[in-house]
Amino acid sequence: MKTIVSGARPTGSLHLGNYAGAIANWLRLQETEHCYFFVANYHMLTTGFLDVSQLHENTGIVLAELLAMGVDPDKVTLFVQSDVREHAEFCMLLSMLTPVSWLERNPTYKDLMDNLDQPELRTAGFLNYPVLMAADILMYKADAVPVGQDQAPHLEITREIARRFNHLYDGVLREPQAIHISPVLMRGMDGRKMSKSYGNAISFQDTPETVREKIRLTVTDPARVRRNDPGNPDVCSVFDLHKVFNPDEAPEIRHLCQTAGIGCVECKKRVAEKIAAFHTPIHEKSRELLAHPARLADIAADGAKKAAAVAADTMAEVREAMNLGI
Amino acid sequence: MKTIVSGARPTGSLHLGNYAGAIANWLRLQETEHCYFFVANYHMLTTGFLDVSQLHENTGIVLAELLAMGVDPDKVTLFVQSDVREHAEFCMLLSMLTPVSWLERNPTYKDLMDNLDQPELRTAGFLNYPVLMAADILMYKADAVPVGQDQAPHLEITREIARRFNHLYDGVLREPQAIHISPVLMRGMDGRKMSKSYGNAISFQDTPETVREKIRLTVTDPARVRRNDPGNPDVCSVFDLHKVFNPDEAPEIRHLCQTAGIGCVECKKRVAEKIAAFHTPIHEKSRELLAHPARLADIAADGAKKAAAVAADTMAEVREAMNLGI
Repeated sequence: MKTIVSGARPTGSLHLGNYAGAIANWLRLQETEHCYFFVANYHMLTTGFLDVSQLHENTGIVLAELLAMGVDPDKVTLFVQSDVREHAEFCMLLSMLTPVSWLERNPTYKDLMDNLDQPELRTAGFLNYPVLMAADILMYKADAVPVGQDQAPHLEITREIARRFNHLYDGVLREPQAIHISPVLMRGMDGRKMSKSYGNAISFQDTPETVREKIRLTVTDPARVRRNDPGNPDVCSVFDLHKVFNPDEAPEIRHLCQTAGIGCVECKKRVAEKIAAFHTPIHEKSRELLAHPARLADIAADGAKKAAAVAADTMAEVREAMNLGI
Repeated sequence: MKTIVSGARPTGSLHLGNYAGAIANWLRLQETEHCYFFVANYHMLTTGFLDVSQLHENTGIVLAELLAMGVDPDKVTLFVQSDVREHAEFCMLLSMLTPVSWLERNPTYKDLMDNLDQPELRTAGFLNYPVLMAADILMYKADAVPVGQDQAPHLEITREIARRFNHLYDGVLREPQAIHISPVLMRGMDGRKMSKSYGNAISFQDTPETVREKIRLTVTDPARVRRNDPGNPDVCSVFDLHKVFNPDEAPEIRHLCQTAGIGCVECKKRVAEKIAAFHTPIHEKSRELLAHPARLADIAADGAKKAAAVAADTMAEVREAMNLGI
């Protein structure tokens, strides 16, 4: 049984792409591994500090949706990052031994720097976010961390920080391994990658009616103009949905599309049924939780307590290793 | 009554120059103002992370010496920084809104960068230390902060961070004013500025015998070769000591030196008496405290409790302003 750590940023209601790309994997991992899953609200500040007006609400929404999707607080430790303040202290302590050069060569940082029109967004917190990520992971002595391809450099920084800490202070931090996640391509309504920021996502706070309507409006193969034209499922957003939510029928749908054996309207209806069966209970369960904030807060408090017990042990070791205290 | 915040880095035993330059001022402030004084052990890591072997011991020594000098836990809140973990969380949160450009233009940072032969020392924690300082100060809503000339830019960053926080989050942080401290020139045994790193300091852990011996070996005006040569007190380390520890007789000593009316040996003896009367009780009291670590730990715990009560209130406001939590 491996210890796994993974976080979800509370950007707002999670969408089908988040489920397929990350949370579906959490649900598999929780059955066999020792998992710490958290809502990464501190991380939202690294890029979102200029407008925090939705942060509190979004934190609740994401927690409720994770629970509604089946993340099980009896099987995993599920918590909100800012409820376990040791993450902040550990981040600050690890920053002391992290060369700025390691952070500046982070590809995500370089990318964002090249594309920033507001230099004020280049904050210390943003530069330092791989260190916060290292704190999140090393806190629980994770054996492994699920990472997409773009996050691999961050995990490498985490490993370097752990090595440096252990070398300098005879520390006992564990270097985590990567669990490489096969990327799931899920395009949104407009054919671009499904993303909240593109406004093309089907989210779990959408009502069942909105979900149907969004599927109805989703673009398909643009070259398939008439009903009798054969389609190319590999460029079709709707076929992406079939692959994830209708996997058994997906090979048949592929064939029917390529041979014009099914029209886009009918194809959408078939996946809409499947998505409704998946989405509606999650939507309703999350609405139910959000209507009872005290219940949600209790779940968060229980999770924070479990996480903090482990975090307190790690921080006691860290402080002793660094000769802090009196 | 103003709220004042000031910290002392636990570089090791404090010396006469630390007393004259900073702690004498603390003793004045504690009589009339509402003071938070702390041993800044987190700050030691910003430059000292490569070797923390003495950090724990030095933290205790500095705390004991402050108490022995008369810093009074009944009048002020005296604590060890790492005992109030809110400082670390606040530092991390403030880093989110602090542009790296503000930190890079910090003159101390630029100076050190220009003189660093080891680029590995350019760490995120070091870059970020003005933010940690801002957290220390803003946590207690300080009205004012004693600053030497070289620290004025740091206080300006603190004020800018407070303004930005208040602007972004309708926050209630207070912009502190500077209490400008007149610099006290105290040269050490070799004629350079008294400093632990030069090895020319008279420290409170030196025994009374060592103190006498160090004064005996201290250089005076190098141009005064013979007993009958007139001396120049303005270039003499021993006269620096007279000014601080023998202020009543200092004008007379100045005149006697300039007219060769007193020899260096006699001049040193006269200041050595005064320094002994000041140093010996502080030395003994601090040794006594250090011999009873449980007593020292109790004092630190009481101070941390007082500080943490205020820090918890500030952090509750900060977290609410930033929409953290569930």
